[in-house]
Amino acid sequence: MPGFEIRAAVESDVPALLRLIRGLAAFEDLEHLLEVDEPRLAQSLFGPRPAAEALVALTDDQPQAVGMAIFFPSYSTFLGRPGLYLEDLYVDEPHRGQGIGRALLKAVAAVACRRGCPRLEWAVMDWNKRAQKLYQAIGAKQHKEWTVCRLTGEPLKRLADS
Amino acid sequence: MPGFEIRAAVESDVPALLRLIRGLAAFEDLEHLLEVDEPRLAQSLFGPRPAAEALVALTDDQPQAVGMAIFFPSYSTFLGRPGLYLEDLYVDEPHRGQGIGRALLKAVAAVACRRGCPRLEWAVMDWNKRAQKLYQAIGAKQHKEWTVCRLTGEPLKRLADS
Repeated sequence: MPGFEIRAAVESDVPALLRLIRGLAAFEDLEHLLEVDEPRLAQSLFGPRPAAEALVALTDDQPQAVGMAIFFPSYSTFLGRPGLYLEDLYVDEPHRGQGIGRALLKAVAAVACRRGCPRLEWAVMDWNKRAQKLYQAIGAKQHKEWTVCRLTGEPLKRLADS
Repeated sequence: MPGFEIRAAVESDVPALLRLIRGLAAFEDLEHLLEVDEPRLAQSLFGPRPAAEALVALTDDQPQAVGMAIFFPSYSTFLGRPGLYLEDLYVDEPHRGQGIGRALLKAVAAVACRRGCPRLEWAVMDWNKRAQKLYQAIGAKQHKEWTVCRLTGEPLKRLADS
Protein backbone atom coordinates (compact mmCIF):
# COMPACT_ATOMS: atom_id res chain seq x y z
CA MET A 1 0.00 0.00 0.00
CA PRO A 2 1.54 3.35 -1.02
CA GLY A 3 2.03 6.11 1.53
CA PHE A 4 0.07 9.34 1.24
CA GLU A 5 0.14 12.92 2.42
CA ILE A 6 -2.53 15.61 2.88
CA ARG A 7 -1.77 19.23 2.00
CA ALA A 8 -3.57 22.46 1.13
CA ALA A 9 -4.48 22.59 -2.56
CA VAL A 10 -2.68 25.08 -4.80
CA GLU A 11 -3.71 26.48 -8.16
CA SER A 12 -1.80 23.82 -10.10
CA ASP A 13 -4.09 21.22 -8.49
CA VAL A 14 -7.10 22.62 -10.40
CA PRO A 15 -7.07 19.93 -13.16
CA ALA A 16 -6.85 17.18 -10.52
CA LEU A 17 -9.60 18.81 -8.43
CA LEU A 18 -11.86 19.03 -11.48
CA ARG A 19 -11.23 15.36 -12.24
CA LEU A 20 -12.11 14.48 -8.63
CA ILE A 21 -15.27 16.65 -8.72
CA ARG A 22 -16.32 14.82 -11.91
CA GLY A 23 -15.56 11.52 -10.19
CA LEU A 24 -17.75 12.51 -7.25
CA ALA A 25 -20.60 13.59 -9.56
CA ALA A 26 -20.41 10.24 -11.38
CA PHE A 27 -20.31 8.35 -8.04
CA GLU A 28 -23.47 10.19 -6.92
CA ASP A 29 -25.13 9.88 -10.35
CA LEU A 30 -25.38 13.67 -10.48
CA GLU A 31 -23.31 14.43 -13.59
CA HIS A 32 -26.26 16.34 -15.08
CA LEU A 33 -25.73 19.02 -12.37
CA LEU A 34 -22.08 19.69 -13.30
CA GLU A 35 -21.42 23.21 -14.60
CA VAL A 36 -17.93 23.79 -13.22
CA ASP A 37 -14.87 24.11 -15.50
CA GLU A 38 -11.18 24.85 -14.87
CA PRO A 39 -11.32 28.68 -15.07
CA ARG A 40 -14.33 28.87 -12.75
CA LEU A 41 -12.76 26.47 -10.26
CA ALA A 42 -9.45 28.36 -10.33
CA GLN A 43 -11.25 31.69 -9.83
CA SER A 44 -13.53 30.49 -7.02
CA LEU A 45 -10.84 28.64 -5.05
CA PHE A 46 -7.67 30.62 -5.86
CA GLY A 47 -8.92 34.04 -7.00
CA PRO A 48 -8.80 37.25 -4.95
CA ARG A 49 -11.84 36.24 -2.82
CA PRO A 50 -11.82 32.45 -2.40
CA ALA A 51 -15.32 31.03 -1.80
CA ALA A 52 -13.97 27.81 -0.27
CA GLU A 53 -10.75 26.03 0.69
CA ALA A 54 -9.47 22.71 -0.57
CA LEU A 55 -7.19 20.00 0.80
CA VAL A 56 -5.78 17.30 -1.45
CA ALA A 57 -4.43 13.81 -0.80
CA LEU A 58 -1.36 12.65 -2.73
CA THR A 59 0.03 9.12 -2.88
CA ASP A 60 3.63 8.09 -3.64
CA ASP A 61 2.58 6.31 -6.83
CA GLN A 62 0.47 9.00 -8.57
CA PRO A 63 1.51 12.39 -9.98
CA GLN A 64 -1.90 13.97 -9.27
CA ALA A 65 -4.14 14.21 -6.21
CA VAL A 66 -6.28 11.12 -5.56
CA GLY A 67 -8.57 12.67 -2.96
CA MET A 68 -9.94 16.04 -1.87
CA ALA A 69 -11.88 17.85 0.84
CA ILE A 70 -13.56 21.17 0.02
CA PHE A 71 -14.95 23.28 2.84
CA PHE A 72 -16.07 26.80 3.75
CA PRO A 73 -16.91 28.73 6.95
CA SER A 74 -20.41 28.30 8.34
CA TYR A 75 -22.16 29.93 11.29
CA SER A 76 -24.25 28.66 14.18
CA THR A 77 -26.72 31.09 15.76
CA PHE A 78 -27.22 28.72 18.71
CA LEU A 79 -23.49 28.86 19.46
CA GLY A 80 -22.93 32.42 18.19
CA ARG A 81 -19.75 31.11 16.58
CA PRO A 82 -18.44 30.19 13.13
CA GLY A 83 -18.11 26.55 12.15
CA LEU A 84 -16.91 24.71 9.05
CA TYR A 85 -19.08 23.13 6.38
CA LEU A 86 -17.52 20.27 4.42
CA GLU A 87 -19.02 20.56 0.94
CA ASP A 88 -17.22 17.60 -0.65
CA LEU A 89 -15.08 14.70 0.48
CA TYR A 90 -13.93 12.32 -2.22
CA VAL A 91 -11.26 9.68 -2.81
CA ASP A 92 -10.65 7.97 -6.16
CA GLU A 93 -12.07 4.45 -6.19
CA PRO A 94 -8.72 2.58 -6.50
CA HIS A 95 -7.39 4.45 -3.46
CA ARG A 96 -10.26 3.80 -1.06
CA GLY A 97 -9.81 1.63 2.03
CA GLN A 98 -6.37 3.09 2.81
CA GLY A 99 -7.48 5.66 5.37
CA ILE A 100 -7.26 8.61 2.97
CA GLY A 101 -10.87 9.74 3.54
CA ARG A 102 -10.37 9.62 7.29
CA ALA A 103 -7.07 11.53 6.98
CA LEU A 104 -8.81 14.26 4.94
CA LEU A 105 -11.58 14.49 7.56
CA LYS A 106 -8.96 14.66 10.33
CA ALA A 107 -7.19 17.51 8.50
CA VAL A 108 -10.46 19.46 8.18
CA ALA A 109 -11.22 18.81 11.88
CA ALA A 110 -7.75 20.15 12.72
CA VAL A 111 -8.47 23.34 10.74
CA ALA A 112 -11.78 23.70 12.65
CA CYS A 113 -10.05 23.31 16.03
CA ARG A 114 -7.22 25.70 15.13
CA ARG A 115 -9.78 28.36 14.15
CA GLY A 116 -11.98 27.91 17.20
CA CYS A 117 -14.86 26.47 15.15
CA PRO A 118 -16.78 24.15 17.49
CA ARG A 119 -18.84 22.52 14.74
CA LEU A 120 -18.08 20.64 11.52
CA GLU A 121 -21.04 19.67 9.34
CA TRP A 122 -21.62 17.91 6.05
CA ALA A 123 -24.27 15.84 4.25
CA VAL A 124 -24.14 12.20 3.20
CA MET A 125 -26.27 10.31 0.68
CA ASP A 126 -28.61 7.84 2.40
CA TRP A 127 -27.28 4.93 0.26
CA ASN A 128 -23.61 5.66 0.97
CA LYS A 129 -23.23 3.14 3.81
CA ARG A 130 -19.45 2.97 3.54
CA ALA A 131 -19.09 6.69 4.22
CA GLN A 132 -21.71 6.53 6.99
CA LYS A 133 -19.69 3.80 8.70
CA LEU A 134 -16.65 6.07 8.73
CA TYR A 135 -18.66 9.04 10.02
CA GLN A 136 -20.10 6.91 12.80
CA ALA A 137 -16.63 5.64 13.72
CA ILE A 138 -15.29 9.17 14.23
CA GLY A 139 -18.26 10.11 16.45
CA ALA A 140 -20.32 12.22 14.02
CA LYS A 141 -24.06 12.37 14.65
CA GLN A 142 -26.49 11.80 11.79
CA HIS A 143 -29.40 14.24 12.03
CA LYS A 144 -32.14 12.39 10.18
CA GLU A 145 -34.72 14.82 11.56
CA TRP A 146 -33.38 17.52 9.20
CA THR A 147 -34.22 17.65 5.48
CA VAL A 148 -32.03 19.67 3.11
CA CYS A 149 -34.04 22.16 1.00
CA ARG A 150 -32.64 23.76 -2.14
CA LEU A 151 -33.94 26.62 -4.26
CA THR A 152 -32.22 27.21 -7.61
CA GLY A 153 -32.74 28.53 -11.14
CA GLU A 154 -36.16 29.86 -12.16
CA PRO A 155 -37.92 29.32 -8.80
CA LEU A 156 -35.13 31.29 -7.04
CA LYS A 157 -35.46 34.20 -9.51
CA ARG A 158 -39.25 34.05 -9.35
CA LEU A 159 -39.24 34.35 -5.55
CA ALA A 160 -36.68 37.18 -5.63
CA ASP A 161 -38.81 39.12 -8.16
CA SER A 162 -42.19 38.35 -6.55
CA MET B 1 -53.41 42.84 10.30
CA PRO B 2 -50.46 45.20 10.84
CA GLY B 3 -48.12 46.05 7.98
CA PHE B 4 -44.49 44.92 8.09
CA GLU B 5 -41.14 45.70 6.55
CA ILE B 6 -37.93 43.70 6.05
CA ARG B 7 -34.55 45.37 6.49
CA ALA B 8 -30.92 44.45 7.17
CA ALA B 9 -30.28 43.96 10.89
CA VAL B 10 -28.12 46.51 12.70
CA GLU B 11 -26.25 46.18 15.99
CA SER B 12 -29.12 47.63 18.02
CA ASP B 13 -31.23 44.63 16.87
CA VAL B 14 -29.00 42.24 18.87
CA PRO B 15 -31.39 41.93 21.88
CA ALA B 16 -34.31 41.24 19.51
CA LEU B 17 -32.24 38.74 17.50
CA LEU B 18 -31.24 36.93 20.68
CA ARG B 19 -34.88 36.76 21.75
CA LEU B 20 -35.81 35.33 18.33
CA ILE B 21 -32.95 32.78 18.46
CA ARG B 22 -34.21 31.68 21.89
CA GLY B 23 -37.73 31.47 20.46
CA LEU B 24 -36.48 29.28 17.62
CA ALA B 25 -34.56 27.01 20.02
CA ALA B 26 -37.72 26.61 22.16
CA PHE B 27 -39.81 25.92 19.02
CA GLU B 28 -37.36 23.19 17.98
CA ASP B 29 -37.00 21.85 21.54
CA LEU B 30 -33.25 22.50 21.30
CA GLU B 31 -32.77 24.98 24.15
CA HIS B 32 -30.08 22.71 25.66
CA LEU B 33 -27.86 23.59 22.66
CA LEU B 34 -28.01 27.37 23.23
CA GLU B 35 -24.65 28.95 24.11
CA VAL B 36 -25.04 32.32 22.40
CA ASP B 37 -25.28 35.58 24.38
CA GLU B 38 -25.49 39.26 23.39
CA PRO B 39 -21.74 40.04 23.24
CA ARG B 40 -21.02 36.95 21.14
CA LEU B 41 -23.91 37.63 18.78
CA ALA B 42 -22.87 41.28 18.40
CA GLN B 43 -19.26 40.25 17.72
CA SER B 44 -20.10 37.50 15.22
CA LEU B 45 -22.70 39.47 13.25
CA PHE B 46 -21.47 43.07 13.58
CA GLY B 47 -17.78 42.76 14.48
CA PRO B 48 -14.87 43.43 12.11
CA ARG B 49 -15.28 40.05 10.34
CA PRO B 50 -18.99 39.14 10.33
CA ALA B 51 -19.57 35.37 10.13
CA ALA B 52 -23.13 35.77 8.84
CA GLU B 53 -25.71 38.36 7.81
CA ALA B 54 -29.14 38.97 9.29
CA LEU B 55 -32.40 40.42 8.03
CA VAL B 56 -35.19 41.38 10.43
CA ALA B 57 -38.93 41.82 10.02
CA LEU B 58 -40.64 44.71 11.79
CA THR B 59 -44.37 45.27 12.20
CA ASP B 60 -46.16 48.57 12.77
CA ASP B 61 -47.38 47.48 16.20
CA GLN B 62 -44.14 46.23 17.82
CA PRO B 63 -40.99 48.17 18.79
CA GLN B 64 -38.70 45.16 18.21
CA ALA B 65 -38.18 42.74 15.32
CA VAL B 66 -40.72 39.89 15.16
CA GLY B 67 -38.86 37.78 12.60
CA MET B 68 -35.37 37.11 11.30
CA ALA B 69 -33.36 35.38 8.58
CA ILE B 70 -29.68 34.61 9.20
CA PHE B 71 -27.52 33.46 6.29
CA PHE B 72 -23.92 33.10 5.12
CA PRO B 73 -22.12 32.39 1.83
CA SER B 74 -21.81 28.75 0.77
CA TYR B 75 -20.03 27.14 -2.19
CA SER B 76 -21.01 24.53 -4.74
CA THR B 77 -18.19 22.56 -6.37
CA PHE B 78 -20.60 21.24 -9.00
CA LEU B 79 -21.41 24.80 -10.08
CA GLY B 80 -18.00 26.28 -9.22
CA ARG B 81 -19.90 29.22 -7.73
CA PRO B 82 -20.83 30.63 -4.33
CA GLY B 83 -24.36 30.20 -3.01
CA LEU B 84 -26.16 31.25 0.14
CA TYR B 85 -26.96 29.08 3.14
CA LEU B 86 -29.95 30.12 5.25
CA GLU B 87 -29.04 29.09 8.78
CA ASP B 88 -32.21 30.30 10.52
CA LEU B 89 -35.62 31.58 9.52
CA TYR B 90 -37.98 32.43 12.35
CA VAL B 91 -41.13 34.44 12.99
CA ASP B 92 -42.66 34.98 16.44
CA GLU B 93 -45.72 32.79 16.93
CA PRO B 94 -48.32 35.65 17.16
CA HIS B 95 -47.05 37.06 13.85
CA ARG B 96 -47.19 33.88 11.78
CA GLY B 97 -49.64 33.51 8.91
CA GLN B 98 -49.12 37.09 7.70
CA GLY B 99 -46.57 36.34 4.98
CA ILE B 100 -43.58 37.48 7.04
CA GLY B 101 -41.67 34.20 6.64
CA ARG B 102 -42.20 34.27 2.88
CA ALA B 103 -41.12 37.93 2.74
CA LEU B 104 -37.90 37.10 4.64
CA LEU B 105 -37.23 34.21 2.23
CA LYS B 106 -37.90 36.49 -0.75
CA ALA B 107 -35.43 39.05 0.64
CA VAL B 108 -32.73 36.37 1.03
CA ALA B 109 -33.47 35.12 -2.52
CA ALA B 110 -33.07 38.69 -3.77
CA VAL B 111 -29.65 38.93 -2.06
CA ALA B 112 -28.66 35.62 -3.73
CA CYS B 113 -29.72 36.85 -7.18
CA ARG B 114 -28.00 40.24 -6.76
CA ARG B 115 -24.74 38.48 -5.84
CA GLY B 116 -24.90 35.92 -8.66
CA CYS B 117 -25.44 33.02 -6.25
CA PRO B 118 -27.42 30.39 -8.17
CA ARG B 119 -28.29 28.31 -5.10
CA LEU B 120 -30.03 28.93 -1.79
CA GLU B 121 -30.07 26.07 0.71
CA TRP B 122 -31.38 25.44 4.20
CA ALA B 123 -32.60 22.57 6.38
CA VAL B 124 -36.06 21.96 7.79
CA MET B 125 -37.18 19.72 10.67
CA ASP B 126 -39.15 16.71 9.40
CA TRP B 127 -42.11 17.53 11.70
CA ASN B 128 -42.35 21.19 10.63
CA LYS B 129 -45.10 20.66 8.04
CA ARG B 130 -46.16 24.33 8.03
CA ALA B 131 -42.69 25.46 6.95
CA GLN B 132 -42.45 22.61 4.44
CA LYS B 133 -45.70 23.75 2.83
CA LEU B 134 -44.25 27.23 2.32
CA TYR B 135 -40.99 25.84 0.91
CA GLN B 136 -42.92 23.67 -1.52
CA ALA B 137 -45.07 26.64 -2.57
CA ILE B 138 -42.00 28.70 -3.56
CA GLY B 139 -40.56 25.82 -5.61
CA ALA B 140 -37.83 24.56 -3.25
CA LYS B 141 -36.83 20.91 -3.59
CA GLN B 142 -36.58 18.72 -0.50
CA HIS B 143 -33.54 16.45 -0.75
CA LYS B 144 -34.53 13.57 1.49
CA GLU B 145 -31.67 11.48 0.10
CA TRP B 146 -29.18 13.63 2.05
CA THR B 147 -28.57 13.23 5.77
CA VAL B 148 -26.95 16.06 7.76
CA CYS B 149 -23.89 14.91 9.76
CA ARG B 150 -22.43 16.94 12.61
CA LEU B 151 -19.18 16.57 14.52
CA THR B 152 -18.73 18.70 17.64
CA GLY B 153 -17.05 18.87 21.03
CA GLU B 154 -14.88 15.98 22.19
CA PRO B 155 -15.25 13.80 19.04
CA LEU B 156 -14.15 16.77 16.89
CA LYS B 157 -11.06 17.38 19.06
CA ARG B 158 -10.31 13.66 19.22
CA LEU B 159 -10.33 13.35 15.43
CA ALA B 160 -8.19 16.50 15.01
CA ASP B 161 -5.60 15.14 17.49
CA SER B 162 -5.66 11.52 16.25
